[in-house]
Amino acid sequence: MTTETTPRVEATHGYISNKSRYLARLKRIEGQARGIHRMVDEDTYCIDILTQISALTSALENVALGLLDDHLKHCVVAAAKAGGSEAEQKINEASQAIARLVKS
Amino acid sequence: MTTETTPRVEATHGYISNKSRYLARLKRIEGQARGIHRMVDEDTYCIDILTQISALTSALENVALGLLDDHLKHCVVAAAKAGGSEAEQKINEASQAIARLVKS
Amino acid sequence: MTTETTPRVEATHGYISNKSRYLARLKRIEGQARGIHRMVDEDTYCIDILTQISALTSALENVALGLLDDHLKHCVVAAAKAGGSEAEQKINEASQAIARLVKS
Amino acid sequence: MTTETTPRVEATHGYISNKSRYLARLKRIEGQARGIHRMVDEDTYCIDILTQISALTSALENVALGLLDDHLKHCVVAAAKAGGSEAEQKINEASQAIARLVKS
Repeated sequence: MTTETTPRVEATHGYISNKSRYLARLKRIEGQARGIHRMVDEDTYCIDILTQISALTSALENVALGLLDDHLKHCVVAAAKAGGSEAEQKINEASQAIARLVKS
Repeated sequence: MTTETTPRVEATHGYISNKSRYLARLKRIEGQARGIHRMVDEDTYCIDILTQISALTSALENVALGLLDDHLKHCVVAAAKAGGSEAEQKINEASQAIARLVKS
Repeated sequence: MTTETTPRVEATHGYISNKSRYLARLKRIEGQARGIHRMVDEDTYCIDILTQISALTSALENVALGLLDDHLKHCVVAAAKAGGSEAEQKINEASQAIARLVKS
Repeated sequence: MTTETTPRVEATHGYISNKSRYLARLKRIEGQARGIHRMVDEDTYCIDILTQISALTSALENVALGLLDDHLKHCVVAAAKAGGSEAEQKINEASQAIARLVKS
């Protein structure tokens, strides 16, 4: 009964091993967003603001692609091994997320 | 053994079941590309050409997303079940293809 | 009046000077679309097809960006010089075309 | 000579009239970025994080498209009216910004 409070390994999500790196990247992204707000507030030249927005969009896409790769390697592979409809459902869900990324 | 030259079932790719539908969609896409060529040749108004290019790009993205979903459901799931480094390699390959789609 | 059938200079569109280059690029794009159709027909490996679709999408985007640049330099500049609501309308139209490109 | 420090009207950028709305939208965007950081920190399910990243990317794109529209309507139109190489330079600059948005 002493194992009741042991964290369940399968409950952690795929990206957990790189969590601190993702958190650092997202901290930077938050700073970029704040910087764009300041640029507009200070009437920075429009083209320079657009350059920063493109950089921020790329940074976000790279985080998304990293999370997706981790998700495929952990959740989807685990579901595929378990077999059954779970794998197909996980892949439908991943495909919809990919479609949103491609179209956004 | 006369079966040596029999096509190996596992060599067929994931999208094979919908092959005729993909071929029909790609035929239409080829026609759209030809239409854009004709529009430029006939000096069609620029904005109208851009509209057609956006429609063609969307059609291509949808084909890509469909192929990718099929690929995940067949190749990647099969590799995950087989286990070993094959699964990871397949997912790296898929992630790179997704990155190209997101960034293109 | 013998000038009635004279082509109106202002009726030609902005990209006319590079027309043969656009036509050559679009011919290649049509060939790329045909190549993707053939790849599906011949059961080429899915990831290789996705690579070709990304290449085709990029080629289309580059044509669109070129046409748009020409359009801004000719039509939009001419409308801006003429003044009035025409300039604003042309820019609304261009902005909508840009939004479709960014979101597709 | 007391007018030396008077703000030059032509130095204000095109989006100035909607500045408070842009600032509000960017404040929200900053909050969305902070929310994604928190989701990773709290081990939220990967697909849900991807959904939020797509929403944030779309919000950024819409801000960029708005700024670009304002820029075309003010800076580019003014440069076109002034004539000379300034207009072409402004459009080259805008086209490069558009290309970065389309490709990011």
